[in-house]
Amino acid sequence: MSCPVGVYDSGYGGLTVLRQLRKTLPELDYLYLGDSGRAPYGGRDVDTILDFSEQCVERLFAEGCRAILVACHTVSCVALRHLQHRYGSAERRILGVTIPAAEAAVQRTRGHIGFVGTARTVASHTFRTEVRKLSDSVQITEVAAPLLAPIVEEGWEDTEIARLAVQRYLAKFDGVDTLVLGCTHYPLLERAFNELTPPEVNVLNPAPEVAERFRAWRERHPGFAPVGTGSLRVLSSGDVTRFATHGARFLGEALPAVEHIAEQNGRLALCPEGSEPTGQVVR
Amino acid sequence: MSCPVGVYDSGYGGLTVLRQLRKTLPELDYLYLGDSGRAPYGGRDVDTILDFSEQCVERLFAEGCRAILVACHTVSCVALRHLQHRYGSAERRILGVTIPAAEAAVQRTRGHIGFVGTARTVASHTFRTEVRKLSDSVQITEVAAPLLAPIVEEGWEDTEIARLAVQRYLAKFDGVDTLVLGCTHYPLLERAFNELTPPEVNVLNPAPEVAERFRAWRERHPGFAPVGTGSLRVLSSGDVTRFATHGARFLGEALPAVEHIAEQNGRLALCPEGSEPTGQVVR
Repeated sequence: MSCPVGVYDSGYGGLTVLRQLRKTLPELDYLYLGDSGRAPYGGRDVDTILDFSEQCVERLFAEGCRAILVACHTVSCVALRHLQHRYGSAERRILGVTIPAAEAAVQRTRGHIGFVGTARTVASHTFRTEVRKLSDSVQITEVAAPLLAPIVEEGWEDTEIARLAVQRYLAKFDGVDTLVLGCTHYPLLERAFNELTPPEVNVLNPAPEVAERFRAWRERHPGFAPVGTGSLRVLSSGDVTRFATHGARFLGEALPAVEHIAEQNGRLALCPEGSEPTGQVVR
Repeated sequence: MSCPVGVYDSGYGGLTVLRQLRKTLPELDYLYLGDSGRAPYGGRDVDTILDFSEQCVERLFAEGCRAILVACHTVSCVALRHLQHRYGSAERRILGVTIPAAEAAVQRTRGHIGFVGTARTVASHTFRTEVRKLSDSVQITEVAAPLLAPIVEEGWEDTEIARLAVQRYLAKFDGVDTLVLGCTHYPLLERAFNELTPPEVNVLNPAPEVAERFRAWRERHPGFAPVGTGSLRVLSSGDVTRFATHGARFLGEALPAVEHIAEQNGRLALCPEGSEPTGQVVR
């Protein structure tokens, strides 16, 4: 059985992190799980996020992963500690993106960090908590931007709609010098963020930092993510054809055939294609 | 125990239907349930919609309702028949919005009906099926508009962003004469729809038709919705303060204090306020 690195996200966004990982560690095998049939997570209640994230990491461990990177900021901010308590062991590890993002921001800031993320991510204030562990003095402003992930999911990141939405959310910040893109969808809006912020503001996509820290972690723990053949498998709980087509924009290269997963009795099971019913359902 | 009419929606949108109902039948008691903590439903898989809609109608029946109007088009299109099979009886009835919308559209059209709704509503093709039962010859074009409900949820319905998004979706129609707003959020975008469609296109908000048909149904079945005192209770699975503030835009009047409901062991239970945890959750 192969031992791929599991990369878990609520949808497409984590493919931007996978892209960096494959650049940094091309010799590893990867298994990506995008819970796109239930994305976006950002407006969901905490119980639902805990439930979904349990189902997803259980599927990844069942597929042979020993190390899972939670690429989704919402899950990282709300459920990471729970997942680590419940599933972490001498054999299995779960890593997140919030601490790398906080460390990168504190390294770069001149005193005022902005953080933009989903409603749930921001409501958790986990990013603020992680920054506070590193610095007492830095100022932090967190802004929820519930419309940005849906805009990117719709493929509208290069439209005037996207620019106007980014502009409205940016108007809520005042005087930040470093702006953290705290959702894996937002790197696709990086151009809009860069154009609409003053030149002295550093717009920070945490993905390269996350990949670099994963590389360092893996050097210390090679057994969790052994050298493979550079293979990639992709699972999605949504429309697999759409996931493959749409996902290429995030990954920066074509995806392999995407395998369908769906909830069955509280678990995410591998499913034959076309199992999703349409119309009125009587069960 | 009072016997209010239950009005169920995934979020705020159904308040536009409730508004019509209270105009048409002001002497009844109403109990509104907005599942805003888990909204929008439009991108969700069918199993999840079935599960959530069961939880919501069970809560409404437990609160004393005998008649429930499913105001949400997504639930009406996907799960109504299931809910009717499972819960309908000589004592309890569940009604939807798809058939009233189809009948109103067929009455008005000169030959080509457009329907705009969520991804799941459109994928079900239930509206098309209901129109086909009434007419073999009318042409139907259905378009999914996944971004419109989130734009309204964000309160941005009067922005250029909303106009541009409506315009992009309208570009997918060709030659329709009647356009059905197949999501309870869209009446808040009615002005944009009217301005951006040619004058000969009839933009149809089904809510008044739904209310009128409920009035007629209730005349035939007075026991399911007896005369009360015109009272209104509101339940929400999301942020109740936000629901009350934000909901007034949809209802057209101030809401009473909103009561919080949350999922506990697969059921929606009434909850004390402030029970939603923040930060990293370990359970």
